[in-house]
Amino acid sequence: MSVLVVGSIAFDTIETPFGRSDDTLGGSSTYIALSANYFSDNVNLVGVVGSDFGDQNLRLFQSRDINIDGLQVIEDGKTFRWAGKYHYDMNTRDTLDTQLNVLADFDPVIPHQYQQCKYVCLGNIDPILQRKVLGQISRPKLRICDTMNFWIEGMLDELKKTLEEVDLLVINDSEARELSREPNLVKAARVIRNMGPKILIIKKGEHGALLFTDNGVFAAPAYPLESIYDPTGAGDTFAGGLIGYIAKQDDFSELTLRKGILYGSAMASFCVEQFGPQRLLDLSHLEIEDRFQSFLDLSQIND
Amino acid sequence: MSVLVVGSIAFDTIETPFGRSDDTLGGSSTYIALSANYFSDNVNLVGVVGSDFGDQNLRLFQSRDINIDGLQVIEDGKTFRWAGKYHYDMNTRDTLDTQLNVLADFDPVIPHQYQQCKYVCLGNIDPILQRKVLGQISRPKLRICDTMNFWIEGMLDELKKTLEEVDLLVINDSEARELSREPNLVKAARVIRNMGPKILIIKKGEHGALLFTDNGVFAAPAYPLESIYDPTGAGDTFAGGLIGYIAKQDDFSELTLRKGILYGSAMASFCVEQFGPQRLLDLSHLEIEDRFQSFLDLSQIND
Repeated sequence: MSVLVVGSIAFDTIETPFGRSDDTLGGSSTYIALSANYFSDNVNLVGVVGSDFGDQNLRLFQSRDINIDGLQVIEDGKTFRWAGKYHYDMNTRDTLDTQLNVLADFDPVIPHQYQQCKYVCLGNIDPILQRKVLGQISRPKLRICDTMNFWIEGMLDELKKTLEEVDLLVINDSEARELSREPNLVKAARVIRNMGPKILIIKKGEHGALLFTDNGVFAAPAYPLESIYDPTGAGDTFAGGLIGYIAKQDDFSELTLRKGILYGSAMASFCVEQFGPQRLLDLSHLEIEDRFQSFLDLSQIND
Repeated sequence: MSVLVVGSIAFDTIETPFGRSDDTLGGSSTYIALSANYFSDNVNLVGVVGSDFGDQNLRLFQSRDINIDGLQVIEDGKTFRWAGKYHYDMNTRDTLDTQLNVLADFDPVIPHQYQQCKYVCLGNIDPILQRKVLGQISRPKLRICDTMNFWIEGMLDELKKTLEEVDLLVINDSEARELSREPNLVKAARVIRNMGPKILIIKKGEHGALLFTDNGVFAAPAYPLESIYDPTGAGDTFAGGLIGYIAKQDDFSELTLRKGILYGSAMASFCVEQFGPQRLLDLSHLEIEDRFQSFLDLSQIND
């Protein structure tokens, strides 16, 4: 089934203890789309870039049959740029530079041919824009949303209005605590689910993820990785694998959600193996199935 | 099968954000024995207390058919005392007072009738004493050991000698990093397993536990608890449930270890529901099976 992906597209400059990568293709929707594309053959991108984006990057999406009819290229504009540096433990990072550029005036317009998309993934952008996207989709089956502390701290009321229209929220543990003002994650989940999203996924970084639904809780493990080169985009890659798998199954039963989280985790575990989205460009389906099986083996008990 | 439990027996004074409990029965071997006893009907305790320990506490063990032939009661001696205060997040605590008392001169003597015990659980005590215990057991099938940062920092060489004689080490994540001098847990596990214990369990508190064996890695989830009243003894209760289940099965296959970790986790999740070992005194086997099933449901994917 069709997937609509809306979010940022960026050039990232990334420093980790293992090296540095300048002006690397990035942004939430880039990672979501590249990841979802391994599961769904109908991925539709909405975003904005400047005239500096380059044909090579446009062709990268097109060569993978990702629809970029909704990608606005602003003449004489500059693409959004982000620079960050990861600490030794890879769990924390400092933002060194943010240049919104064309993202500052982003006004998402959903092309007519996208408006029937059944699965909508709202990457981490202004909650007002997220709502504006939802207003243009006629009958979505599932609306997934990501957000971050910047919006929780600065635009809480707008974010809450958006959450009322969302079915599935993906958020990390510190954001969940901040959004709910509740340190205990079980209580936090109850507060957040009352804000709108009936399905809540709380990511815990190297400790896996928790899924909260009407059926209870599911705890997904994180694969204990020996080497992480660059965590940039791991969360978006997770969301992309999840919505891609859901769209492929065309249902969001408990079983599909649980397996979707493991597929998302598998995709994220590939993402961190190289700088930027590099590792997402050359995966085979066999590799993905093998990694999914590793996640299963990691946590399953078979009599 | 028979289980031998050696460790401290204490009176704990515990403060948590939920209240305070004075001179509560505690100590590593108390929690291990009470927990293991739900699985094995042949639990044998070795430890030392003072004449202040009281008949009531002795009868508590006896009434549960825990063998206390190996419990030394020192005339005119005082039982080991510990006092601690948990912070708001329940993950960190300050030790307010430690009075070793009779534990300072503890010399574990294994009664003749214990020497055939097949499953040996060495609670967190001086690694020299742990080795002294092992020297008195004729043919153990499995030797489990716990330790803590105090011994890693102060008696590393002695601890390493003990580890050479141990089959299964249970340790928390910060201790694993300290013992191996390696921040990455996968690498830390390799270093520690090379020190002796072929089976390694790294506890990650509210994030579950990792099992490392020759077969690979298993990630056990922690049940996301809404209310934790007192974490004291949770780690020992985990070890007790684990060795109790292993002794009951009388094998330590990958399947038994995985299920044993979930049973240990289930027992630990009961332990924290009340102050001290209170909750471990009135459990039913049905409650334990239900909680084990909850841990299974939490992490399993069933097509």
